[in-house]
Amino acid sequence: MDYIVRDIKLAPGGKLKIDWVREHMPVLEEIRKDFEANQPFKGKRVAVSVHLEAKTAYLAKVLKAGGAEVVVTGSNPLSTQDDVAAALADDGIRVFAWYNATPEEYKDHLVKVLETRPQIIIDDGGDLVHILHHERQDLLPGVIGGAEETTTGILRLRAMEKEGLLKFPMMAVNDAYCKHLFDNRYGTGESVWTGIMRTTNLIVSGKSVVVAGYGWCGKGIAMKAKGLGAKVIITEIDPIKAIEAHMDGFRVLTMDDAAALGDVFIT
Amino acid sequence: MDYIVRDIKLAPGGKLKIDWVREHMPVLEEIRKDFEANQPFKGKRVAVSVHLEAKTAYLAKVLKAGGAEVVVTGSNPLSTQDDVAAALADDGIRVFAWYNATPEEYKDHLVKVLETRPQIIIDDGGDLVHILHHERQDLLPGVIGGAEETTTGILRLRAMEKEGLLKFPMMAVNDAYCKHLFDNRYGTGESVWTGIMRTTNLIVSGKSVVVAGYGWCGKGIAMKAKGLGAKVIITEIDPIKAIEAHMDGFRVLTMDDAAALGDVFIT
Amino acid sequence: MDYIVRDIKLAPGGKLKIDWVREHMPVLEEIRKDFEANQPFKGKRVAVSVHLEAKTAYLAKVLKAGGAEVVVTGSNPLSTQDDVAAALADDGIRVFAWYNATPEEYKDHLVKVLETRPQIIIDDGGDLVHILHHERQDLLPGVIGGAEETTTGILRLRAMEKEGLLKFPMMAVNDAYCKHLFDNRYGTGESVWTGIMRTTNLIVSGKSVVVAGYGWCGKGIAMKAKGLGAKVIITEIDPIKAIEAHMDGFRVLTMDDAAALGDVFIT
Amino acid sequence: MDYIVRDIKLAPGGKLKIDWVREHMPVLEEIRKDFEANQPFKGKRVAVSVHLEAKTAYLAKVLKAGGAEVVVTGSNPLSTQDDVAAALADDGIRVFAWYNATPEEYKDHLVKVLETRPQIIIDDGGDLVHILHHERQDLLPGVIGGAEETTTGILRLRAMEKEGLLKFPMMAVNDAYCKHLFDNRYGTGESVWTGIMRTTNLIVSGKSVVVAGYGWCGKGIAMKAKGLGAKVIITEIDPIKAIEAHMDGFRVLTMDDAAALGDVFIT
Repeated sequence: MDYIVRDIKLAPGGKLKIDWVREHMPVLEEIRKDFEANQPFKGKRVAVSVHLEAKTAYLAKVLKAGGAEVVVTGSNPLSTQDDVAAALADDGIRVFAWYNATPEEYKDHLVKVLETRPQIIIDDGGDLVHILHHERQDLLPGVIGGAEETTTGILRLRAMEKEGLLKFPMMAVNDAYCKHLFDNRYGTGESVWTGIMRTTNLIVSGKSVVVAGYGWCGKGIAMKAKGLGAKVIITEIDPIKAIEAHMDGFRVLTMDDAAALGDVFIT
Repeated sequence: MDYIVRDIKLAPGGKLKIDWVREHMPVLEEIRKDFEANQPFKGKRVAVSVHLEAKTAYLAKVLKAGGAEVVVTGSNPLSTQDDVAAALADDGIRVFAWYNATPEEYKDHLVKVLETRPQIIIDDGGDLVHILHHERQDLLPGVIGGAEETTTGILRLRAMEKEGLLKFPMMAVNDAYCKHLFDNRYGTGESVWTGIMRTTNLIVSGKSVVVAGYGWCGKGIAMKAKGLGAKVIITEIDPIKAIEAHMDGFRVLTMDDAAALGDVFIT
Repeated sequence: MDYIVRDIKLAPGGKLKIDWVREHMPVLEEIRKDFEANQPFKGKRVAVSVHLEAKTAYLAKVLKAGGAEVVVTGSNPLSTQDDVAAALADDGIRVFAWYNATPEEYKDHLVKVLETRPQIIIDDGGDLVHILHHERQDLLPGVIGGAEETTTGILRLRAMEKEGLLKFPMMAVNDAYCKHLFDNRYGTGESVWTGIMRTTNLIVSGKSVVVAGYGWCGKGIAMKAKGLGAKVIITEIDPIKAIEAHMDGFRVLTMDDAAALGDVFIT
Repeated sequence: MDYIVRDIKLAPGGKLKIDWVREHMPVLEEIRKDFEANQPFKGKRVAVSVHLEAKTAYLAKVLKAGGAEVVVTGSNPLSTQDDVAAALADDGIRVFAWYNATPEEYKDHLVKVLETRPQIIIDDGGDLVHILHHERQDLLPGVIGGAEETTTGILRLRAMEKEGLLKFPMMAVNDAYCKHLFDNRYGTGESVWTGIMRTTNLIVSGKSVVVAGYGWCGKGIAMKAKGLGAKVIITEIDPIKAIEAHMDGFRVLTMDDAAALGDVFIT
């Protein structure tokens, strides 16, 4: 079996994490059943670049259940969890990723994924697509298309498309309303606070929190902060969003004024 | 029948109001059933001084259901509703009250109530008890005791008790935890906003609201204001209450500083 | 002077109301200054159909300040305030509206507005435009265009446009993001509760509130209800909106199930 | 130097943690300045049993700054942080504690603390006081008194006092209003969620959370859960607290009914 993970013996711990989250993702579970029955990816090789943790790992397993041969890498060396990567490899999915990879290792993992000659590219930030178009055009033939999750990746894709350089269609997942809701507003809105509460060993109640921007992420972060008892200040250059923040009960200030007042700044 | 109301022909409208609130006071309704069965006030005359509107009117009717002969007056000329007063009179309860009574009329109504020789005094602000002790001691004999609802009234009673002047026991309703919860936190907390929204024809969202004091009423008012989307500033001289407001996510300022920031001030 | 109001002597009271709201509408005030300086409506007659109360009355005055000759009617006989209408008439604006107009009177007021031969139509629900196209085509010449505020009115306009019947361009105000925010989410969200609190003489805290639909209005109403301490249940047939309500912390039920649980229903 | 810690070389990491929290505890910092100036504990040996992490470690340092000779142990083997313990030891404070101590080791650490012959006992759960009274009465002479933090510890102390067994006065810290506010409502209210969010890798938004009891902790946990977007159900046998929860907008059910509805249960 062909994979690059830190330590395959970490697989049991990773498997526990994946099993746990699976029980709490009923929609994905429904999709899995449908995929198993209908095999939409039968005979297709799918490259997946993601923040490699339990939930995305289970996504890879669902694609496999749908008939795909799945090849996985991490989209950021700092988010890759070695036990989860090991669990996927142990399950027969090719994984090329480890935590804290050097830039050279990270690049090497991406290239190894592409050298498996995937027909479908699930990208997160645009690195797979970039390498395909700029460094390894030899691997382009056979690629049908794919999907890109992030704003950054979509901006890169749009720029390529405008110049007529994009060689296959990509779905802009980030434009979906559900993506805004679940990833940005609820997902980021909460996980920002989990991270801050855990890292700082401080209480949020009573803190003055400055949130830069009142877009989907900013709204989510601000709402959760308010719900946790923080005093929230919004900075926003778009006048409509600024007045929306004002009407939602937040103070709206310039960053210059907010800088002196905040205990925590989220940008 | 002996009563003083503005216009007895208003009774049908007042009766509708009383019937409506009765359906939404299930606890008082349970008490009524118990009172009807056990007649705890049988043979007793009960003087009631209240903000005379539908809910308190129904309280008077429940006392009557418990066997009492009830005599009612308003505790504030501006809160008396003439149609509700008429409905009570029409129902056979002696009422001496009308909206916008002059000080002389108001005093006369109180005295008329006392001249019915009640055994029990339900007071709201202390006026009935005051007259009994200072002006009409001739009416004191026969009074068993009673209850006082307000902080003001209780302070007056405590002062009298300290000097050995209080001639009968009074229950301090205002000291009850449920009184704090339902009258102060939820009741005042909401009705303040009903009044302001109705009177000003303005929206609360986005307004800067200054609440003076973070006691039971202040907490209720502040919580509802936050819930309606206002930016709330608390002024508070008690350091514990001030820090509680801070931890609940409110800005805490001196009134000097808050004065320049507020759109609405609630004292 | 040509007008139809209930009683011109009510003008001073209406003027007080208009003066009060003007002080709390700083954006409209800025627009007034700009209009006064630039006279964008100079020489134009503008027909305005609105819920005729203090805020919309001031809008009419701002249009007049911009050079327009303004003719006003109410868009719903039950929302017209006679004192405000009188104040406008007293200020030299032609008004045809009174509270509780019969269907015949209401129609007559609309027609009288159109017979002044306006070039611009500000409609609220589509009645002015409907009469122009279906009953009084003789008044169509000279109309340049206008604006429509409501969803209902816009649906009627789109249907007419589809059939090629619409004779002049209309701006769909309801499609504006700020309209959703300020009229629907914050405006309706709050005023629904002002109305219910005032009408029912009940407290919102602790009530089970069923909100039918989680669109802009529904979200606003639900948020304010939660903020006031109600337990909110949402019914919603659109699955994305339903899951948004779920993630915002509301119970989502079918109306069949919700019907047994609600104290208050808002549809 | 006399101490028992896992590894004194962990001290630098522990020191960083203590320095970090110190900057965020301005009130304790003010107390430190006062203690340094006035030396209230000069010549006194103070035994401290606490959840040994950065914030309580700094408390020990503040006592030392006040002139005390401080001896520290952990009040629960699972909460002791070895790097923080090492930092205290490195700073010249006698520490007897390590993470995951066996029951025998834990007991041995407590006894070692007492064998230093402290005059003042700061207890957390009552173990130090228990040993002094029941196993090592020989160490009682010289003890002046102390303080106990927890409900459990105070219950144990009250039982001893009732039987006339308590040999020195203890302050019941848990009875203080600020303790309820900061430790229970805000502290536990938030840290429960930090722990759950971190441990489960799940989002709180949309979850049905059952909170058993609406006391100080329960209120804090429920408020934060609501603020994070959960649907909160309260179980409560005290009718006053139950109705307070109801009026705060929570569903109140028996645990039997709640058991079928909850995703997360907090008892």
